[in-house]
Amino acid sequence: MRVVWWNGKLIPESEAKLSIYDSAFMFGDTIFEMTRSFNRIQFKLQEHLERLHRSAMYVRMPFPYTIGELTQACLDVQTVNKFDDSDEHRLMINITRGKLAIYESVEGSASGPNVIISDFPLRWTTQGMGKLFDEGINMVIPSQRAIPALLLDPKVKNRSRLHYLMANIEVAQYKGENNWPLLLDPDGFIAEGTGCNFFIEKDSKIFTPEPRNILRGITRDFVMKLHGNAYEKNLEPYDVYEADGAFVTGTPFCVLPVVSLNGIKIGDGKPGREYRLIMDRFNKHTGVAIKKQIQHWDNGIQGGTTPYQFAWTDSASSISS
Amino acid sequence: MRVVWWNGKLIPESEAKLSIYDSAFMFGDTIFEMTRSFNRIQFKLQEHLERLHRSAMYVRMPFPYTIGELTQACLDVQTVNKFDDSDEHRLMINITRGKLAIYESVEGSASGPNVIISDFPLRWTTQGMGKLFDEGINMVIPSQRAIPALLLDPKVKNRSRLHYLMANIEVAQYKGENNWPLLLDPDGFIAEGTGCNFFIEKDSKIFTPEPRNILRGITRDFVMKLHGNAYEKNLEPYDVYEADGAFVTGTPFCVLPVVSLNGIKIGDGKPGREYRLIMDRFNKHTGVAIKKQIQHWDNGIQGGTTPYQFAWTDSASSISS
Amino acid sequence: MRVVWWNGKLIPESEAKLSIYDSAFMFGDTIFEMTRSFNRIQFKLQEHLERLHRSAMYVRMPFPYTIGELTQACLDVQTVNKFDDSDEHRLMINITRGKLAIYESVEGSASGPNVIISDFPLRWTTQGMGKLFDEGINMVIPSQRAIPALLLDPKVKNRSRLHYLMANIEVAQYKGENNWPLLLDPDGFIAEGTGCNFFIEKDSKIFTPEPRNILRGITRDFVMKLHGNAYEKNLEPYDVYEADGAFVTGTPFCVLPVVSLNGIKIGDGKPGREYRLIMDRFNKHTGVAIKKQIQHWDNGIQGGTTPYQFAWTDSASSISS
Amino acid sequence: MRVVWWNGKLIPESEAKLSIYDSAFMFGDTIFEMTRSFNRIQFKLQEHLERLHRSAMYVRMPFPYTIGELTQACLDVQTVNKFDDSDEHRLMINITRGKLAIYESVEGSASGPNVIISDFPLRWTTQGMGKLFDEGINMVIPSQRAIPALLLDPKVKNRSRLHYLMANIEVAQYKGENNWPLLLDPDGFIAEGTGCNFFIEKDSKIFTPEPRNILRGITRDFVMKLHGNAYEKNLEPYDVYEADGAFVTGTPFCVLPVVSLNGIKIGDGKPGREYRLIMDRFNKHTGVAIKKQIQHWDNGIQGGTTPYQFAWTDSASSISS
Amino acid sequence: MRVVWWNGKLIPESEAKLSIYDSAFMFGDTIFEMTRSFNRIQFKLQEHLERLHRSAMYVRMPFPYTIGELTQACLDVQTVNKFDDSDEHRLMINITRGKLAIYESVEGSASGPNVIISDFPLRWTTQGMGKLFDEGINMVIPSQRAIPALLLDPKVKNRSRLHYLMANIEVAQYKGENNWPLLLDPDGFIAEGTGCNFFIEKDSKIFTPEPRNILRGITRDFVMKLHGNAYEKNLEPYDVYEADGAFVTGTPFCVLPVVSLNGIKIGDGKPGREYRLIMDRFNKHTGVAIKKQIQHWDNGIQGGTTPYQFAWTDSASSISS
Amino acid sequence: MRVVWWNGKLIPESEAKLSIYDSAFMFGDTIFEMTRSFNRIQFKLQEHLERLHRSAMYVRMPFPYTIGELTQACLDVQTVNKFDDSDEHRLMINITRGKLAIYESVEGSASGPNVIISDFPLRWTTQGMGKLFDEGINMVIPSQRAIPALLLDPKVKNRSRLHYLMANIEVAQYKGENNWPLLLDPDGFIAEGTGCNFFIEKDSKIFTPEPRNILRGITRDFVMKLHGNAYEKNLEPYDVYEADGAFVTGTPFCVLPVVSLNGIKIGDGKPGREYRLIMDRFNKHTGVAIKKQIQHWDNGIQGGTTPYQFAWTDSASSISS
Repeated sequence: MRVVWWNGKLIPESEAKLSIYDSAFMFGDTIFEMTRSFNRIQFKLQEHLERLHRSAMYVRMPFPYTIGELTQACLDVQTVNKFDDSDEHRLMINITRGKLAIYESVEGSASGPNVIISDFPLRWTTQGMGKLFDEGINMVIPSQRAIPALLLDPKVKNRSRLHYLMANIEVAQYKGENNWPLLLDPDGFIAEGTGCNFFIEKDSKIFTPEPRNILRGITRDFVMKLHGNAYEKNLEPYDVYEADGAFVTGTPFCVLPVVSLNGIKIGDGKPGREYRLIMDRFNKHTGVAIKKQIQHWDNGIQGGTTPYQFAWTDSASSISS
Repeated sequence: MRVVWWNGKLIPESEAKLSIYDSAFMFGDTIFEMTRSFNRIQFKLQEHLERLHRSAMYVRMPFPYTIGELTQACLDVQTVNKFDDSDEHRLMINITRGKLAIYESVEGSASGPNVIISDFPLRWTTQGMGKLFDEGINMVIPSQRAIPALLLDPKVKNRSRLHYLMANIEVAQYKGENNWPLLLDPDGFIAEGTGCNFFIEKDSKIFTPEPRNILRGITRDFVMKLHGNAYEKNLEPYDVYEADGAFVTGTPFCVLPVVSLNGIKIGDGKPGREYRLIMDRFNKHTGVAIKKQIQHWDNGIQGGTTPYQFAWTDSASSISS
Repeated sequence: MRVVWWNGKLIPESEAKLSIYDSAFMFGDTIFEMTRSFNRIQFKLQEHLERLHRSAMYVRMPFPYTIGELTQACLDVQTVNKFDDSDEHRLMINITRGKLAIYESVEGSASGPNVIISDFPLRWTTQGMGKLFDEGINMVIPSQRAIPALLLDPKVKNRSRLHYLMANIEVAQYKGENNWPLLLDPDGFIAEGTGCNFFIEKDSKIFTPEPRNILRGITRDFVMKLHGNAYEKNLEPYDVYEADGAFVTGTPFCVLPVVSLNGIKIGDGKPGREYRLIMDRFNKHTGVAIKKQIQHWDNGIQGGTTPYQFAWTDSASSISS
Repeated sequence: MRVVWWNGKLIPESEAKLSIYDSAFMFGDTIFEMTRSFNRIQFKLQEHLERLHRSAMYVRMPFPYTIGELTQACLDVQTVNKFDDSDEHRLMINITRGKLAIYESVEGSASGPNVIISDFPLRWTTQGMGKLFDEGINMVIPSQRAIPALLLDPKVKNRSRLHYLMANIEVAQYKGENNWPLLLDPDGFIAEGTGCNFFIEKDSKIFTPEPRNILRGITRDFVMKLHGNAYEKNLEPYDVYEADGAFVTGTPFCVLPVVSLNGIKIGDGKPGREYRLIMDRFNKHTGVAIKKQIQHWDNGIQGGTTPYQFAWTDSASSISS
Repeated sequence: MRVVWWNGKLIPESEAKLSIYDSAFMFGDTIFEMTRSFNRIQFKLQEHLERLHRSAMYVRMPFPYTIGELTQACLDVQTVNKFDDSDEHRLMINITRGKLAIYESVEGSASGPNVIISDFPLRWTTQGMGKLFDEGINMVIPSQRAIPALLLDPKVKNRSRLHYLMANIEVAQYKGENNWPLLLDPDGFIAEGTGCNFFIEKDSKIFTPEPRNILRGITRDFVMKLHGNAYEKNLEPYDVYEADGAFVTGTPFCVLPVVSLNGIKIGDGKPGREYRLIMDRFNKHTGVAIKKQIQHWDNGIQGGTTPYQFAWTDSASSISS
Repeated sequence: MRVVWWNGKLIPESEAKLSIYDSAFMFGDTIFEMTRSFNRIQFKLQEHLERLHRSAMYVRMPFPYTIGELTQACLDVQTVNKFDDSDEHRLMINITRGKLAIYESVEGSASGPNVIISDFPLRWTTQGMGKLFDEGINMVIPSQRAIPALLLDPKVKNRSRLHYLMANIEVAQYKGENNWPLLLDPDGFIAEGTGCNFFIEKDSKIFTPEPRNILRGITRDFVMKLHGNAYEKNLEPYDVYEADGAFVTGTPFCVLPVVSLNGIKIGDGKPGREYRLIMDRFNKHTGVAIKKQIQHWDNGIQGGTTPYQFAWTDSASSISS
């Protein structure tokens, strides 16, 4: 039975519930982070917590613990939730403003902000993504546009995001498989997926939208450094059609290839060269064969001695695929 | 102890909590309505539930009960929560999409949508508003703009509304008392408050923004009918300064006078003639002396035999004030 | 063999071709009208030609014939192209600016504007639409927006309309049947289909977008008069979901019911009451059972004595369906 | 008599005509390229054909030949159309989607896409431009704005461009000589001329608008490389007034100086230093004295032994002028 | 020698000068009104002063006199400036915020707001307009757009209007005579001239832009009442080309016909029927033959016994012209 | 008694007044520059006059003197206005278009443009700013947006700027001290203060908005060079919250630290490291201890031997503070 860290206490996951009078529920008034481990070690936790702090500052959310304390809390909850070696820990760190003042007298939940760290198997999030490493994603531009920073800044990782869900639903109505939404901002520039950042490959360089109407993803930043020849730029659909390849980045799956936009092939319609290069380096850096791991989970392979521990042979196969 | 109606069951209010894995929490993915009673009889309940149904349709939220069933549920919860005669019932009716599919295996909360009806004393919501009936509100236009319908339609009463909270916080930084935010839309037209609709008075007519980038309030509609000489129109700050008076409408307080915009007096800087006319008719229609009721609550006057039952003398005093 | 009227001469349709150096081809620089007959009598020909004249004036296209002369030309071409009684004449009237000046010396086409009237069986245009009278259309809002009047006025019926085709292609990628695109303008207001005007029904009234970022359809105007309780208004998707019914108008098919938007049912998901009312009156007015005619064509029924001549029984069946 | 290459066949230019039922005519649904030769050798043909392919992909136009085949076709048509040595070959390569499906039965034109390569003397296009090399152009900003990429991407070289013609007409109403339109995009940034890209000179650098709401000209790219100190940047009218010089690029004339904007002198109101530098290099690169060639054509000088063959003396005179 | 009323004193016009340290000069921080007389009686003075008061309120300008006091001041200044009977009084009423606080110690001008009423012959303003009553104006849409109310509200009659001057200069560059600028707002709707409101005539009705991004002219309001069949509506260039006629309104000239837009004739290209109707009624209402008066001034006819006193024969001739 | 240079003549400051019929007053039609001296030597005078010339060109203002002549005029006026050694000269250089043509006959002011150079103690402008060097400014984002360059280019230093004053007034309504407005442009990017340019500090670099919807400040340019690691970039409020520090630049005060935005601390809420570095270099470059000078003025310390002459000890104390 998993536990959740709630304002300093570890409680059973089944009791990790929020009052319906909490500002989180009332206004989408939560800031949050979601992380993952590689071989049970949290990745970029410091960066995630610092972003959480910036989000808090922006929306004037109380931030009742130091980053050091939150780091410790993450370790604590993960230690208690001892997972099988074939699993990884996905942490979800939320801060809510707490019960609205007018509901003060409602029983059963304390006043003030709620800092909540839950921890569950990463495979829940990645389910069904295994095949995408090989088949690639078809990004689809829906009618739904990104809300620009002037109105509600997506750089603040918050939970007032019904429009993301609307985009997901819209794209589910398209024919075909492996469709993910790619939002344009109101100016027509590519913004982001509804849970990932977008890159194109061109002439051995990689390009990703200017960090304006998007979440500035931590994997996005890491991939730019991993690759070394990465640029932020306003991108439009035309640029994608002209590209050699494309991919998306996100914490749970790290990097996934994009092979078409609106059903039109990008490059040769296969995972791109830079994507494979990055994936290779990502594997090496983390010591996990990421694609293999997620595909194993999808195949229901569990236990054993971490069959997707990264090995040098993975790299080669990745490049040759 | 109050109860809450949850998917057909009555549970203690202290147990009315939502999983942190619910879509409501994750995306601000809740549609809702909030109602009030007059003399313990729910007002415009049918209209609220129909709007709830339209919201559900728009965001493709499951709607697992008929409007008839929900009406009955509202009555049921209110019957159990027998309030003192000096109280009114404020119902909060929420529908969430339920736990996200990937969290299926989390224990302690069932799958599927949650329909939740809670019921609490209206005085919680109206606290501190009593003096506004006499002093009037100073609306302040913050830098925060309304999100236009193209991006996330405010006509759908949803809980992805962090920007409302941002506007509230911004306006709290202004000097002076009784400041409420008044949002402009990106075109510069007046949209709405962060929980009320806005009207101006001019030459014995009343005008309210076109029903585009606003919630189409049920009190707004009712007030337009009560008054009889009401028009929807694009309004700008200039129109407000040129007006004879102004007011806001909202379910809990019904109507409140607005006496200035950005600190600049509207008309003679007192509650306007049409406001008082409407308030008078509202009192008569509902049988409750609304201002007196809310002021009594603010003064901590409780119990007795409903001291703010509307009487014909209230009307006169209202007009002469 | 059909003939085409070209600058005053009747030529075989197979020779009705335009130089690749014509401004029409170079810039989409054509203005045009498309009409239809009822029982071989052209409908609203005067209105079409007057709109053609306004289009010419707006884009400063030469207009070398009077409206009277063009009317006669339409009659002439139709007289020569004697169709079977089961057919109707669809006229296409184009004006192009002619060969660009720099291509003056190219042989095989004269200089100056080309006025071209072609005439072909209406059934070509309506093919496959027969079932839509019963099943209704599912309008789909694509990512492609209408080009607003400020940039290129759609009220001018011109042939610089690649974006219409782009919208058609985009909507073809949606799942399901009977999908037609419905364009929003950049403000998020409903504009038009890519060949039809859009209406909603509400409380026995009909509403259609303000005549701003749309073609001001001649059938649109006629239907507003036929119905009698029609209004121009900014419409948004929310308004459609709230409507009792919806339909589109266009010259070839006159009126077709819309039963859903983005797959979400409008009203009861069946052709609406006002639609049926209008169709009934349209039949009477024109003396043609429009739906029956188009369905017969789709069924390959031809010849005979005009089996879809309107009869009073058609009206009744229309209402009861 | 010139010939035209049409879907693999060479036909007389006078027969190169398109059905009035072709999608090209109906929707401005053509993609195209226009090239030129230097000393009868096509320039950047590969780049033009690759851009044609990207345009096709974007608008989902069939592309029934390989780039290699099209290259051969261009050579073929040019070989047949043997021009005088004083002439250059201007190729126009179009692809149309072909007759709309509903017009299938119209005789006289086959179904499916039309790939059309015509070839005519470049002097047709450049007529009257000769003096501009010395006098310079006065760019004028009309009320007509560029259509932004979000609505119809100008990076796709298509023929749905009535707004270009509207801009041309508007600017023809200005007083004075040598006026060419310079379109702003809706954000107020300089986009392009209606057939050329725009550059400014400043401190020995050259700047041209970001490649967003413009055609990404092949001459534009070549000039950036020729110069070596070239940058893409958002440009506004203020930047032009502050510049040392300005020029435009385009396939037929290569580079032309701009000496004023809206009648206000740029720099000293003469062709700028960078312009002259580029022109000099362009002459050398192509082996043609471009200005001299075009001026000779304008002067009706023809035949002889290519009097505008580039010579080293041209360069010097160019710099000293 | 004319006098000017300045904060309650009458001073010679030649001394009516403002410190270069006045906020008026520093920021365009003046609000103002300009009026005219008919037969030496000020027209709509009350309405002008009330608008001045609203402007003051909006920009938080001190308003140190009552409207009654200002009315008297206007009369006083006009009484002293006794004009010839062939003249009319044009009043210019300005309020400035006064010397900026930091320039307090500059000598030669008092602190605090300046209320300034000057008075000069109307013929100064109307010079050269006489022929326009017969020839009509050609409105030209410049690239310069109106600044929308959201950014700086034109409904506040203020002197921060450099963009009006820019529009005037731009239109002066067009070919032809009688060109006046007609500003579009950023949405593409017709706003206003740079000193007049715009109307079109259609089917015996008159239409003028919604009172949003314009000055709400007092003559505009008066003309709407005079005509009786007047409507406020979003208007676009297309609507003008479709109109039967057009005209502009403004205090000094009252009403002037518009006969073309961008050189394209409106209706039959002559002053419209509604224009003539309004002019006729305006003459009768004011007792002045407005056109005749202004034309006389332009012809240098002066003195005598008010030769342009309105007579019933003027009306007839007006209608028959 | 100070003098003012007016079209070549020196006149007493008390007589430096402008006719109320001047275009400057009528339209905010003035272009201007304001400079300062360091130790009585004008700073960057050439740059200011060159910008003045560009402004004149843009708005087509006459520019009747050469830059050399204006430089001399500045020296002349300063020479006559011999200030105490504890003072600095602030020059204000204005050009107005002069009396509008229709007011030609008004006496007391000549026709044609007015070039006006006034000269007053800098301490007038900096009064009250002394404490800001230590306490820092709280920038506040008002509802008022910057007018974008498309509508009225702020790069032209003109006096049609009522909206700046509106922003000042709006921010004066906020709680707290040291509030200065920071305008966003309509896209939500940070533009400028109402008299200063804005910078953030991040990782030892400094960033300032792209020079689009701002005045391109001369101090801004100088500070970028002084620092050496400076970049132009679109900035949003989020970027400010993420920054290490912030500051503003302006001619009179040179550089002032910004310690919070909307009341939210930037970095540690103290003047930033880069700010202090720049201030140190600025002091050295100009030979004036800028902060000390302004604080002395605020403290009323006057005369003596220039107590705020820069000394090397100032630098040290600046860094250690």
